[in-house]
Order: sequence, then structure tokens, then C-alpha cells
Amino acid sequence: MAYPEPILRLIQALSRLPGIGEKTAERLAFHIHAQGKEEALDLAGAVREVKERLTSCSVCYDITVADPCGICADPKRDRGLVCVVEQSKDLGAVEKAGAHRGLYHVLHGCLSPLDGVGPDQLTIRRLVDRVKKGGVEEVILATNPTAEGDTTAYFIQQALGPTGVKVSRIARGLPAGSSLEYASRASVADAIKERRKL
Amino acid sequence: MAYPEPILRLIQALSRLPGIGEKTAERLAFHIHAQGKEEALDLAGAVREVKERLTSCSVCYDITVADPCGICADPKRDRGLVCVVEQSKDLGAVEKAGAHRGLYHVLHGCLSPLDGVGPDQLTIRRLVDRVKKGGVEEVILATNPTAEGDTTAYFIQQALGPTGVKVSRIARGLPAGSSLEYASRASVADAIKERRKL
Repeated sequence: MAYPEPILRLIQALSRLPGIGEKTAERLAFHIHAQGKEEALDLAGAVREVKERLTSCSVCYDITVADPCGICADPKRDRGLVCVVEQSKDLGAVEKAGAHRGLYHVLHGCLSPLDGVGPDQLTIRRLVDRVKKGGVEEVILATNPTAEGDTTAYFIQQALGPTGVKVSRIARGLPAGSSLEYASRASVADAIKERRKL
Repeated sequence: MAYPEPILRLIQALSRLPGIGEKTAERLAFHIHAQGKEEALDLAGAVREVKERLTSCSVCYDITVADPCGICADPKRDRGLVCVVEQSKDLGAVEKAGAHRGLYHVLHGCLSPLDGVGPDQLTIRRLVDRVKKGGVEEVILATNPTAEGDTTAYFIQQALGPTGVKVSRIARGLPAGSSLEYASRASVADAIKERRKL
């Protein structure tokens, strides 16, 4: 026997989401069916709106409702400092940390040849054009400290070379509040290699 | 900084689902935003339809598009045999096992006084009425082999007492394909206690 068609359709749609297997999709589908009508319609509306109302900022390529986005339109932000991140989520993390008062540039991924992601799938060319237009003094490469993130940062550094703009990379080392004992070997190695003179 | 409002709204709606924390909701929301428009609208439509198109079968109380449901309307099913399950998902499990050719009765939960679920929150009274109407020869209590499921089964057995209908309980024991070594003590105890004469 099969579940009623609407439940099956919802299970299918949910199990296409990342990290949601069939069992979880089933559990979620039955929960959505059991919850109040208002809550379910709110979820349906939220899914629809995220596709219909969001657009891309024409300056930094972050997702936004208004173009340019709130950060790019904010006169208090330092327009000479551009922090390059892989994803909107990374932008959110940098903003939460509160240590960057400049603008951003969202790549929407990192170079990953095996997944078919080359420079043209990212906004790298647009970053170079943005820097060429002038006004940018420093580009902070805040791609993740992973093999792909490092490769992407290196590629962007090379691409920005001819513009003469100052390019920096976020620091690697031990995370705040951690201990040497439990840190990964790579983190400890980074912390030693990147030590600062006091 | 905050994410754009549509993303925030979707994160909130998703994190109300069971087992979905804020980080997972964020990941899912960005995935839904990044996926094709058709897929996202399909998900939104599926959520909406699960509330709008599904109703309850007036015979067995399973969720269904048509009333009575496919199983209750099937002339090939044995109408004298009613299998009582807690949830639609349990009905699905029994159907997949293919060992029951009768009808069902879905309780929509099990007795759980601490969660405020008493007999009136379940379809127990309707089961008794259904049996009183005649035609049912045996009621198989297939609530889960848990404390709550056992309590619910015992309660239903008492409630059905005056009708004189035959009442049975699904068997407990070691799951097929398992080994004594790794089975829980309770399962092994059940397997010994409920041993069958050969």
C-alpha cells in the first residue's frame, strides 16, 4: 500500500532537501499534516516567497529583497574594504563577529573542478571588474580555510594581480577558547607557522 | 546583520519542524533558495496540499484523499479483521509487511496522560462503536510494544470487553535477522516468555 498521494508528494519533495532521508521526510510530512493549517500554509508561503521575492544585489551579489542590499546601501560602511566570502551564510558569520565594517563580495561557491565549478560559475570576474572600477583599497579573501577555499583564494589573488589592489587572507590558527590538546594537527601547525611577533 | 526577511521567515518556519534546529533550518532555507524555482514551488504546493486535500477516512480514521479510503473501500479485504495501530505510519509498516488482509483502525496516538492524551483524544470510542455495529470478528491490537502502547492496548481490551469480540495482541520477541548477543534484555526476556511450543 502507499500513503495518500499528497503525503507521498510531500515526502518526495522533502527528501530532495540535503540531509533529509526518506524516514525523516516521512516524519516531517506527517508532522506538517498534523500541525495547524496556519503553520503549514505559513511554511508553504515562506518556501514560495524565498524564490519569488529574493533577488541578487548588483554590487555584492548577496541575496536581497532590495537592490542594492542593506549593507551596500549603508553610507556608514567602508567602501574601500571588500570582504570576499563563499556563501551568504559566511557573510552572516562575518557580520555576527562584528569585526568588518566594509562591504562584501559573495562568490556563491568555491572552485571545485570535480563538481564542475570553475571560475565562470562564481562571481570572480565580477569582482575583478568591481575592483577595476576603482574605490576598492583592499580585498580580504575570507573563503574557508579548506583546500577548496585556499585554491579559490589563490586563484582570486592571481586574477586581481593586474589591478594592483591590496589583497589579504583571513588568519589561520587555533580557534578562540580551544585548547592545543584537542585541536587538530593542521590547526596546531597553522598556529605555529602563522605565529605573531609580540 | 540579519538575513533578508524571506530567508528569515523560511528559517523560522522550518525550525518549527521536529528535529530541525536553527543551523539545519538555515542550511535547508539556503538550499531551497538555490534550487530551481520549479522544485521550490513543488515543495510549497506539496505542503499546502497535504493540509488542503487530505481528510480522514470515516471508517478507519486513516488520512485519505477519498472517503472511505482505498483499503476500507477494497472488496478483497477481510472486513471481519481489524488491526488497530497508533499512527498512519504504523499502518504503512503493517501493509509493507504484507501479513494483514483485513481493515485498520487508526488511533492517532497512544494513551499518554503526561502529554494530556487520554482516551478522548484518540479514536477508541469510535472503535468500540464500530465493533458494536457488528461484522468485526477479531481486533488485533498492533500498538507499539512500549509502555504507552501496552497501556493503550490494555485499555482498548477492557473497553471492548462488553462487545465479546475476539481481541489479540501482536507478538513480542526477537526481531527477524537479529542475534541474541546484541538484542536488548527486554527483547530476550520477551522471546523466552512468549516461546512457542514446537
